Amino acid sequence: MREFTDLSALALNTATLGHNLEGQGAGWPPERVIDACAERGFGGIVFWRREVGNRAAELGERVRAAGMTVAGLCRTPYLTGRDSEGWSDGARASVDMAAALGAEVLTIVTGGTQPGTKGLADTQKVLAGRVADLAVHAAEAGVKLALEPLNPMFGGNRTCIFTVAEALEICDLVGAPNVGVAVDVYHVWWDSALTRSLERARGRILGFHLCDWLEDTRDMLLDRGMMGDGVADLRAIRAAVEGAGYRGPCEVEVFSARDWWLRPPDEALDAAADRFRRVC
Amino acid sequence: MREFTDLSALALNTATLGHNLEGQGAGWPPERVIDACAERGFGGIVFWRREVGNRAAELGERVRAAGMTVAGLCRTPYLTGRDSEGWSDGARASVDMAAALGAEVLTIVTGGTQPGTKGLADTQKVLAGRVADLAVHAAEAGVKLALEPLNPMFGGNRTCIFTVAEALEICDLVGAPNVGVAVDVYHVWWDSALTRSLERARGRILGFHLCDWLEDTRDMLLDRGMMGDGVADLRAIRAAVEGAGYRGPCEVEVFSARDWWLRPPDEALDAAADRFRRVC
Repeated sequence: MREFTDLSALALNTATLGHNLEGQGAGWPPERVIDACAERGFGGIVFWRREVGNRAAELGERVRAAGMTVAGLCRTPYLTGRDSEGWSDGARASVDMAAALGAEVLTIVTGGTQPGTKGLADTQKVLAGRVADLAVHAAEAGVKLALEPLNPMFGGNRTCIFTVAEALEICDLVGAPNVGVAVDVYHVWWDSALTRSLERARGRILGFHLCDWLEDTRDMLLDRGMMGDGVADLRAIRAAVEGAGYRGPCEVEVFSARDWWLRPPDEALDAAADRFRRVC
Repeated sequence: MREFTDLSALALNTATLGHNLEGQGAGWPPERVIDACAERGFGGIVFWRREVGNRAAELGERVRAAGMTVAGLCRTPYLTGRDSEGWSDGARASVDMAAALGAEVLTIVTGGTQPGTKGLADTQKVLAGRVADLAVHAAEAGVKLALEPLNPMFGGNRTCIFTVAEALEICDLVGAPNVGVAVDVYHVWWDSALTRSLERARGRILGFHLCDWLEDTRDMLLDRGMMGDGVADLRAIRAAVEGAGYRGPCEVEVFSARDWWLRPPDEALDAAADRFRRVC
């Protein structure tokens, strides 16, 4: 465990400040987010593509000038499923954006079940082929790809991998050194095989995302809890992630339309720092 | 596979007709549901406790007089989690109701994480103890208990088991011959270990529930699809369940506030029969 007083391990995913839903959240420009994180001693920031636009190099420089890293970029367009036609151009552009930002890691949310198929086996094969293809371009750009398993409630139209074990199976099929796994507690906290899977993931964990699973989760997408407010065993999961050798940032990512997005962003940032120190 | 024209393997879970949400659905009395199922050649009916009230013996007789079986009863009160205080009396009463109905199987939805704990390990131990306790009473009443794993989106306040494998682990801890597993495609369709787990469940599968997972599922509780309208590989799952020796009813259970509950119940019943023949 790192020192509890040190926030250099903490990264902000900007979705925590509510940018993600039209008309909700503070609408702070990236510069203000960067300054607010730097003031608090955060180690890094993770942006979403829509915030970056054509200012990737400029924003990357600004983050580093403030003493932080661009800890990642969210995310590729879907690689599978109904909305994945023409995936390659968009996915390559997101790799290029990550490279221009100086972000080491680009997250992949896979997309859902391929049209005309049932279940997941066919889609997972398609996914592996497309990730392998993208990994070549990403390697040339110096970017790592982090496959993020999602909670099974997102099967159908958002993902075709649900556990760290499944993400690793895709990694094995792809066999590229720049492809690994993103571990988000919101998605995998419930998995009783998680500790075993994380041990297998040693050397391939490329991201660790923090929030909490609220006991009375009411909405699939926008009802995440701040660390400590839910039932996930965050300390145990972090210990397993770091026990498997992960030394990268702990990225707080709280989509919260009913709570944190209604508060001033400064309050959410202070809470993220405080909870990270006390409950993770 | 049984004959496609034979509906004796099909049971109706009455929730499919919309009783479950105040003010939605047809509000048919149990007698009308029984007649409508018998006319179509269904093999059985699964009731919910609220419909049965103090008429268990009478309704059970009526189902059998119509040539069907009471294929099950939904369900025990929660055995774990915030709402489980005093669980024992309610759980025993639901066993007694199942016995009075002549229902062979009582479904257990476990309940969520125990207050004051994080994660699932502590809660699963509590669950095993309480199921073991209840199993004694159930054995005396001639009732089998079916542990139903739920989709991980129901972690927190509704369940502490998420896969058939986890349900079997609880069965192993309990070690009672009248405790097994209910397999609901809505909850487990995404699990890549499902076929392996079902093989391990041989002799312990006490229920098989059919609906479909809609590609664009919008609501956690009330947005299930009719068989064939979603992305679950129903044929493969049924083959695995029956390949593991299951010969009990296939129970259609479609909570659908945006579609089927808005239609006349006769239409939902006809669709269930038709889809069962064609896509399962």
